[in-house]
Formats: sequence, structure tokens, C-alpha cells
Amino acid sequence: MTRLLTPDELESRLRELGAARYHNLHPFHRMLHSGRSSKAQVQAWALNRYYYQSMIPLKDASLIGRCEDPVLRREWRRRLEDHDGTDTHPGGIERWLKLTDGLGLARELVTSTRALLPTTRFAVQAYVHFVRERSLLEAVASCLTEMFSPQIISERMEGMLAHYDYITPETLSYFAKRPPQARRDAHFALDYVKRHARTPEQQQAVIDTLTFKCDVLWSMLDALHHAYVSPGLIPPGAFVPEG
Amino acid sequence: MTRLLTPDELESRLRELGAARYHNLHPFHRMLHSGRSSKAQVQAWALNRYYYQSMIPLKDASLIGRCEDPVLRREWRRRLEDHDGTDTHPGGIERWLKLTDGLGLARELVTSTRALLPTTRFAVQAYVHFVRERSLLEAVASCLTEMFSPQIISERMEGMLAHYDYITPETLSYFAKRPPQARRDAHFALDYVKRHARTPEQQQAVIDTLTFKCDVLWSMLDALHHAYVSPGLIPPGAFVPEG
Repeated sequence: MTRLLTPDELESRLRELGAARYHNLHPFHRMLHSGRSSKAQVQAWALNRYYYQSMIPLKDASLIGRCEDPVLRREWRRRLEDHDGTDTHPGGIERWLKLTDGLGLARELVTSTRALLPTTRFAVQAYVHFVRERSLLEAVASCLTEMFSPQIISERMEGMLAHYDYITPETLSYFAKRPPQARRDAHFALDYVKRHARTPEQQQAVIDTLTFKCDVLWSMLDALHHAYVSPGLIPPGAFVPEG
Repeated sequence: MTRLLTPDELESRLRELGAARYHNLHPFHRMLHSGRSSKAQVQAWALNRYYYQSMIPLKDASLIGRCEDPVLRREWRRRLEDHDGTDTHPGGIERWLKLTDGLGLARELVTSTRALLPTTRFAVQAYVHFVRERSLLEAVASCLTEMFSPQIISERMEGMLAHYDYITPETLSYFAKRPPQARRDAHFALDYVKRHARTPEQQQAVIDTLTFKCDVLWSMLDALHHAYVSPGLIPPGAFVPEG
């Protein structure tokens, strides 16, 4: 990049990137929400995605832990509450377990993470390390995929409820709560990067960050697709569906 | 694990693990050395594997950088020389580039790492982070896959020279040098873990480390297989072979 973009040009570039590389374009996602996945494939997806959910508060806490601005810290703290819950409201991780419960997966199997695809673990840890090690601007920007998530979540909920009789509104309670939180978080992060990326290099770093994050999500679906769809090669030690 | 193994029992457990999970069992490796890979698949393998080679000295240096024993530091320093070379001897990374040169890949494409599969990057970074963050015992143990590498390298050299007319002893100079280095390194590391894993927990940590490292190598071949063999879904931004 050679010239400074206006904040709105930067936003356009980010939206174009999402339109080209967000994981709603992955064949595994298309299968899942169009009802073409077997129950075993839905189980494998929920089991692996649990690890992503469970690590989100760690990446958020590490951002707060190196942020000197109390306003940003306070804003970001809401995300910890969203995922870890409060005394009176279960958080996103607990609601994700309602999905894996509903799919008939034993809690211990899910929460031990021992049956993960190794690629899931490496991709999620790449995300956590990225937030821990890069600039605060990049750490904030790494959640910009939330700009595109309300769309994917509504496709997923509608499709899964319509096509799978073992999926109920109760098991999908994670997704019912997420879109307004994601919209709020994405709005905040987008506004933040538009105001704080003030050089061409910083703007490029924001764009590269969104590319990285799209790669994380894509890599996770690639691994699921390879193991459980085509060619169906399950790596040693990973979840083997029953039957 | 409930009881302390003898050092030789520990070695047996490690050998069994390698026999079950080392990446010589992966279909991509079998294709590669049996001559069934297309040139594009060999290119994709060499391009992605370059990133692994290029990061090895970083993980070795981070081990040295937190090791208080000068004897171990001096021993480990040889690995830096093996990979980064000296004024008079090219190292492993330079010799790997002879392979990518011989395959007709532009140096800039390879060394920029911009065409990597995201999963390659995440798996290799997981290895680097592991060595940086875990105990010294685990950091040393993470190279135990070298116990099995002389075998895979000889299969690979013999198979590739026999089956691919664009592969010459010159392009395979990396592999010609590696087996004696790998044998020396593996012997040292195996002896080290047999002497230093003195509790059942430490022995389990060594076994878990070898499992982790086998997963790293397996995940890299899974990603190559998914993108370039079956189903042949290349992730956005990754290497697209010509033609």
C-alpha cells in the first residue's frame, strides 16, 4: 500500500476482504447450513469449534492485560462476561455446551479437548498468540471477522433448525444471543481501527490482520472437511464418530 | 501413567508412538516417495516445508536462550550451524532452496512465505511456541521425531530420485546431509529425556510432547493433501500450481 486511505476506504477494503475470504464461503459451512451434513459431521464441527469458543476469553484477557487505556479495558471486559458468564447469566461457552449436549457428545469428551483435530488446536492457538504478541491495533483488529458473523449465524440457525431434527432452539441458544453482541463488538472494533490506523503501514497491518483471522477460520473448516467429509482421513487420536 | 518407567521402557513407549503416529504413515508421504505425486504436488510440498525448515533455528535459539547449562547450550548450538550454515558451509535452509530452485519455484515466492497454506504456518508456529513456552525437558523432547527421520529421508531420497526426472542428487543435497545430523541429535535428545524424566509426570510430559510433534507434522501433510490431492481445495491466497 502506498497512500493513506480515508477511514471509509479502509472500511471498504475490509468488507471486500471479508466478501472474498470469510469462512461462510467454505464448502463445509455450506453443507452444514443447507442440511447436507451427517450428524457425525455436525458433532465433529461442534466438538472442534468448542475449543475456539473456550479460548476466546484468554485472548480477550491478554488484550486487556496489556492495554493502558481504562476505557478500552472496560469496553473489552464485556466480552469476558459474554463468554464466561456471570453468577446469574450463563456465558457463551456454557451455551455452546448445550449444543454439544444436544448432539449427544459427552461433556468430558468435549471439555477435555482430547479428541480435537490437531489443526484446530494450532489455528486457535495461532489466534491467541497473535493477540498476545502483536500491536494493540492488530489485537483489536483481529476481531473484525465479527463484522460478517451476524449473517453467517442467521444462515446457520435457520438452516440447522430447518434441516436437522435433533437441533432445537434450546441447543442453538448460543447463536440466538450472539448476533447483537457481535454487532456491538464489530462496530466498536471497526470504529477503533478507522480512528487509530493513521499511516499506510498501520492500515496495511489492519488488512493483514483480517486476512490472518479469515485464514484461522478457514483452516479450521479445511481440517474438518478433510477429516470428516472428503477424503475422510481422520488424523490419529482425533474424534471418531460412532457407527 | 501411574508408575515410573525404567529409561528403557520409556524409550520403548516413544518408539511405539512413532511407529503409530509418525508422518511416514500419511498418504501424502506415501504418494511422494512412491512416485505418484505430480510435479505440482512436489512443488507445493517443498514450498510449504520450506517454512518449517526456516523456523527451526528460531526454536533452537529460543531453547538455548533459556538454558542455564553451558554444556547443553554448546551441544544445541550445533543445530544452529546445521541449519543456518557457516561462512564456508551452506546450512540446511540454503540446501532446501536448492530443492525449490530445482523444482522451478521462484526464490522470492518461497522465501516470502506468502503462498503458504495457513495450516502450515499455524502448525509450525505451534512448534516454535511450544519450545519457547514449555519446560526445558519438553523443549528437548520435541525434537524426538528425529529418531524416525533417517528412515523417512532414505525412503524419500531413493523414491524421489527413482521416480521424478526433475529431481537430481544436487537438488536433494539437503537430505544427503541430514541423516547423520538427525541421528546424532536424536541420540542426544533420547539420552537426555531418559536421564532427566525422573517422575511419572515428567515421563508423561515427554510422551505427550512426542504426540504433539507428530501432530504438527501430520497436520502439515493433511493440509497439503486437502489442498493439492483430495479433494483439491486450495485455500484463498495459497500457492496455485501453473497450468
